[in-house]
Amino acid sequence: MHTDLVAALDIGGTKIAGALVDGHGRILLRAQRATPAQEDGDTVMGAVEDVIRELTVSPHWGRVRAVGIGSAGPVDAVTGSVSPVNIPGWREYPLVERVRAATGGLPVELIGDGVAITAAEHWQGAARGHDNALCMVVSTGVGGGLVLGGRLHPGPTGNAGHIGHISVDLDGDPCPCGSRGCVERIASGPNIARRALEGGWRPGPDGDTSAAAVAAAARLGDPVAVASFERAAQALAAGIAATATLVEIDIAVIGGGVGKAGDVLFTPLRKALAQYATLSFVQRLTVAPALMGTDAGLVGAAAAAITKKTNETAAGV
Amino acid sequence: MHTDLVAALDIGGTKIAGALVDGHGRILLRAQRATPAQEDGDTVMGAVEDVIRELTVSPHWGRVRAVGIGSAGPVDAVTGSVSPVNIPGWREYPLVERVRAATGGLPVELIGDGVAITAAEHWQGAARGHDNALCMVVSTGVGGGLVLGGRLHPGPTGNAGHIGHISVDLDGDPCPCGSRGCVERIASGPNIARRALEGGWRPGPDGDTSAAAVAAAARLGDPVAVASFERAAQALAAGIAATATLVEIDIAVIGGGVGKAGDVLFTPLRKALAQYATLSFVQRLTVAPALMGTDAGLVGAAAAAITKKTNETAAGV
Repeated sequence: MHTDLVAALDIGGTKIAGALVDGHGRILLRAQRATPAQEDGDTVMGAVEDVIRELTVSPHWGRVRAVGIGSAGPVDAVTGSVSPVNIPGWREYPLVERVRAATGGLPVELIGDGVAITAAEHWQGAARGHDNALCMVVSTGVGGGLVLGGRLHPGPTGNAGHIGHISVDLDGDPCPCGSRGCVERIASGPNIARRALEGGWRPGPDGDTSAAAVAAAARLGDPVAVASFERAAQALAAGIAATATLVEIDIAVIGGGVGKAGDVLFTPLRKALAQYATLSFVQRLTVAPALMGTDAGLVGAAAAAITKKTNETAAGV
Repeated sequence: MHTDLVAALDIGGTKIAGALVDGHGRILLRAQRATPAQEDGDTVMGAVEDVIRELTVSPHWGRVRAVGIGSAGPVDAVTGSVSPVNIPGWREYPLVERVRAATGGLPVELIGDGVAITAAEHWQGAARGHDNALCMVVSTGVGGGLVLGGRLHPGPTGNAGHIGHISVDLDGDPCPCGSRGCVERIASGPNIARRALEGGWRPGPDGDTSAAAVAAAARLGDPVAVASFERAAQALAAGIAATATLVEIDIAVIGGGVGKAGDVLFTPLRKALAQYATLSFVQRLTVAPALMGTDAGLVGAAAAAITKKTNETAAGV
């Protein structure tokens, strides 16, 4: 049976991935290019068009009905433009219009990468079956997205769920975003590593000073490494509790490199969550590691395109 | 023309108000009792039933199609019960069932009081025309509610928008809720007054140590009073910015006694908001004083009942 497909694009500062995805989230074809992140905007777009071209020459292409894009943010779903922090050549770049042109006029749905990951975890991962969920990526940065009332909540511009840049320490350290004490400033991988080094932790002979190396040290009982993860867990807990108190979520899913730290992160996180999530309606809140792998961005972009297409069909558009 | 009406109940720790409200939010009849807050649960319910009785004897009662309740929280819309912090006789009290019985089996919609205020401001007040808004009450406590995508977002249990108990200072002072550094712990009226007194501010000959007296002193330039409002504004700004960053709101409406402080609050609030709301998609965020008066709770409870009734009719229920 030849069912409809969607094309998915996952655009980040390192790579541009594309895929043809069916209605069950299965990937039929992949394409990928390195992101020429320091080049001008049209050169970056050229790499996106190369990825699209690899998809359009597929015999499956005729069944593609829509395109979903998950992009590094901020994005602007209203204007269809993107201004990713780590792709300086793109500022209010009209990505939706360009992708529509490159795909023969297909409908295009644009969401932020945190929202895309969330769509994937809700469709097939750790948030499946949860009508109200926060999904996070904790790695170099801290991103996220929300499911509310059973549906993805991208917000009007496609950026909702940006938990990395809420302040949980209003007098805290300045964050590159311009604010202070943001969750990302305390809980991201580089900040976990920085804090461990400042506290006197030293890497092993391999010189690895990543958060993963700090996690390994914490698992062996190094008190400074443990404390750095505990501080990250405290900031994540305050942010997750704030989200639950504001919009009533019942699960927070944590992916990304730091999310893979396991008990070193999740044990202090669950403890801190009990301290910050105090009101009766948030006490059942749980945290869980993400289940989707590196394809989460592609699968989530596909989910957004499918949902959009379904809604428009239902509305008679 | 005799159109449909709804009955509205606004239940707080001080008073229980009731009204018959038409589809334009006009109040046709009012009833009110003091809340016997320290009595047992059935005595409190007796006061609610007295209010309802005054409404049911009205010649308009035959046109009432539904009941909306806005109650001090936490509430639980799933079970139809309430556990208001300041009404100790009600713990998981089956309010919806009792009100249904007292009104001859009408459909009953239960929401938290912050959500009710929000429904009113969105229907007829400062959030009118805004599809994504946070409405707050800053007074003895700090409460709130959310409008997302053009609709009230009470959350599954009716408590969403509880901005008073998100932590913006994760190492901050303990809050009675059990957490630390909550917005309410810094920005509520009593905390504004406490901080001013601790800083050396002294009341006038009338001995008034309320936040309103601190606001009056701040308007006259008292630096300690000014600083206490600036600190409250900073906490409110961090909380509002967090909300906008999480769910993309474009306006925050502030009511309650502290909201009436005027420029003493709003000038430092707007300044602090620019410092905490940094991402591109939240920079257009504005703050505005609430427009609805003391009837906001009743009008909002009515709005929730009308919306519920409309949705159920549309769904063929």
